[in-house]
Amino acid sequence: MFDPVERLKEFVRHPSVSTDSKYQDGMRGAQEFVSGLLRSLGFAVEVVKTNLHPIILAQRAGDPSWPHVIVYGHYDVQPPDPLDLWKSPPFEPTERDGRLWGRGAADNKGPLMVHIAAVGRLLERNPRLPLRITFLIEGEEETGSPSFLPFLEKYQHRLNADFVFLSDTGIPREDQVVITCGLRGLVLCDVEVTGAKSDLHSGLHGGVLRNPIQALAELCASLHTPDGRVNIPGFYNDVLEVEPWERAELSKLGTTEAEYRSFLGIPAFHVPPGYTPFEAIRFLPTLEFNGISGGYQGEGSKTVIPSKAFVKISCRLVPNQTPAKIRLLLYAAIRERLPKDVTFRIIDQHEATPYIVVPPDRSNTPKDQPARLATAFRAIDAAVTEVFGRPPLYLREGGSVPIIADIKRVLGLDSVLLGLFLPEDNLHAPNESFNLRVMQKGIAVSERMFATLAGK
Amino acid sequence: MFDPVERLKEFVRHPSVSTDSKYQDGMRGAQEFVSGLLRSLGFAVEVVKTNLHPIILAQRAGDPSWPHVIVYGHYDVQPPDPLDLWKSPPFEPTERDGRLWGRGAADNKGPLMVHIAAVGRLLERNPRLPLRITFLIEGEEETGSPSFLPFLEKYQHRLNADFVFLSDTGIPREDQVVITCGLRGLVLCDVEVTGAKSDLHSGLHGGVLRNPIQALAELCASLHTPDGRVNIPGFYNDVLEVEPWERAELSKLGTTEAEYRSFLGIPAFHVPPGYTPFEAIRFLPTLEFNGISGGYQGEGSKTVIPSKAFVKISCRLVPNQTPAKIRLLLYAAIRERLPKDVTFRIIDQHEATPYIVVPPDRSNTPKDQPARLATAFRAIDAAVTEVFGRPPLYLREGGSVPIIADIKRVLGLDSVLLGLFLPEDNLHAPNESFNLRVMQKGIAVSERMFATLAGK
Repeated sequence: MFDPVERLKEFVRHPSVSTDSKYQDGMRGAQEFVSGLLRSLGFAVEVVKTNLHPIILAQRAGDPSWPHVIVYGHYDVQPPDPLDLWKSPPFEPTERDGRLWGRGAADNKGPLMVHIAAVGRLLERNPRLPLRITFLIEGEEETGSPSFLPFLEKYQHRLNADFVFLSDTGIPREDQVVITCGLRGLVLCDVEVTGAKSDLHSGLHGGVLRNPIQALAELCASLHTPDGRVNIPGFYNDVLEVEPWERAELSKLGTTEAEYRSFLGIPAFHVPPGYTPFEAIRFLPTLEFNGISGGYQGEGSKTVIPSKAFVKISCRLVPNQTPAKIRLLLYAAIRERLPKDVTFRIIDQHEATPYIVVPPDRSNTPKDQPARLATAFRAIDAAVTEVFGRPPLYLREGGSVPIIADIKRVLGLDSVLLGLFLPEDNLHAPNESFNLRVMQKGIAVSERMFATLAGK
Repeated sequence: MFDPVERLKEFVRHPSVSTDSKYQDGMRGAQEFVSGLLRSLGFAVEVVKTNLHPIILAQRAGDPSWPHVIVYGHYDVQPPDPLDLWKSPPFEPTERDGRLWGRGAADNKGPLMVHIAAVGRLLERNPRLPLRITFLIEGEEETGSPSFLPFLEKYQHRLNADFVFLSDTGIPREDQVVITCGLRGLVLCDVEVTGAKSDLHSGLHGGVLRNPIQALAELCASLHTPDGRVNIPGFYNDVLEVEPWERAELSKLGTTEAEYRSFLGIPAFHVPPGYTPFEAIRFLPTLEFNGISGGYQGEGSKTVIPSKAFVKISCRLVPNQTPAKIRLLLYAAIRERLPKDVTFRIIDQHEATPYIVVPPDRSNTPKDQPARLATAFRAIDAAVTEVFGRPPLYLREGGSVPIIADIKRVLGLDSVLLGLFLPEDNLHAPNESFNLRVMQKGIAVSERMFATLAGK
């Protein structure tokens, strides 16, 4: 069998940033690397063209009576900036302190490699394994997966599986695995405000017009209440009640608020009333500003009134909020609150529906839960308990994997989300890394799940 | 005599941006160019070293009984960005439509060239002119003139003059000269807000902390009242009452509000109650945001909660506000209003005291106004009336020339500010230019002023 760590280094070396067109070579390199790896394991690999970055569809066919698992992953990564904060270059993977450092090491190249390695090992031991496996590996996850839904609709006849298995969620500590049972959704947009038709001298003209930075600041300041809730009428209307078992499970997390606060490095939390910080990131929606820009940003000063300023807004949604409704409410607030002495435009960005799946044997488990999905949950529970030394927790998570709700809607399939990255892995931030002990344990758990399903 | 337009092109070709260290060669080039030009007119030129960019001290000595005029100017310019909005490159001066286009053409290289050319012509005709002239040309005006005050204090024994003469202020139309009788002051600072110790994934952690962009937006939004006044207690306490003759003079401006609004390209003015737009920029202080920045600013989206965000704030002050007091009030508001769940630092930038000078024969003219200053005012009034076809207006202006108040304090000298640039000259913005007809007329007026003072 191949060495998964060495292969992961090769994978990370391809700078596959999907949101920036200057990384096209890195995108192609990463796609060709993972396609080649799956071909070497005997998979029939098809590289499906899209408008932007292709989707890898790799299948191991078999008797229709065999279980069929779809493994999802993505080969694209977040932009690496700000570059000057990295201790080693983002696309020169470096092994250090039992970790592999590099952009995409944890999101999602490392966890994807876990499942490829698990399948590789199992097939090496059992070349005739009675299990159908499909790898679906996309290249547009970090840009909102615009091609994935059309792909699902076009290829659904080949995706007639029992469930989807993936690792693109987190765990709180090296010895505490989390099976993610819910994901937040997303609504993103940019708001660009224009004042005067060109930049103005703040002395010659200051005092007669509303500065677009001021208009934008006043809008942004209006979007939260002082207690930390989102200040948009109707925003919380569809938020799902939390089940008691969910709060109980969360209480076993084993991280204290002081530890979490220290990890973040903040003077104090800022959480809506009635929720702990751990609950807030899982059970409540948010509105965040991901970027703001306007005017002079260089060294020293430039006494200018800028013509334009913009902000990038994102809302995280929870079940049963819908992106369409939240977008309407948000845009209505923006339109109503921006003053008439500036002009503005709202630029749609991507969105994702929130998702929830309930494990077997819970108060709210659906009565019609498929048997093979329940088998997979139970196999993972047993394997995690043995390999990691304690049972997994079943938690909703704050992040979004936009395609999970699409898969549910188009294919009717639920997803088993085996968390594998740690808080200190620095996803979407400088100095991303992946814990290599977690990687090896993850491979063992994944292998056991596939083996159990196949009856081995 | 030399051709002033050709010499101005040479001057503009040196990219003398004082706020950015990568333009050091351009700064030296501009300094050497203007020093050489003054030497060629017979001036004794001294290049006085400072911590940053040298000051040119060029003197024509003479009998102590002769009048002594100091001409002030600056050879540094604003940064040229955003570069993509320029129709011709900022440092390749281009003659087009009766104008010279290029960064610094109007601020301040063109107007400075006016006085050098006037002196050149006059001395060519009268080599023994009974007039002492000192050119003081600095290279740090656009960065707040940090070296100018120490220079004044050190060299004041050589600056024992009657008054200061300069052109670094504006006029509303080509045929309407303005003598600027007041300038606004300045207080600048940056505010940098820090949330978490590094950038965070907005899904994994969104909802537990205050985003620094949000904290900054809430602060910025708090700094104005809805009617457009600055919302800082005590901010307006020292604002000087406006004299009736000042409002009357302003009413002769000849620009309508509709024309001004259309020039700015804004949907509506946003002016504190009780003032016209023309009054607001001259008689009222402001608080502006010159730049704001935080988080992801590129193409597409990046769902990050940034660690830091900053804003660049500037206040324009009017007589008799003082920078020290306004800085205290502003900083107190910032400290009081930023929430305890973020950290922040305030970075001092430069400042300037507001200035006022009253022309002869007005309700508030000082009884002890020096005779040679009054002579200069009257000579300019007559020359402008003849050359431009109508008398000048005597107005306070919204801009700042930080060293004018320093000159008053250290040398005890008032300044005669002959406006020469037009609104469409685009100071501090892309596509700066200088009107060459105004340039030629300005040379004639300046020459007449020097000649009258010298008794010719």
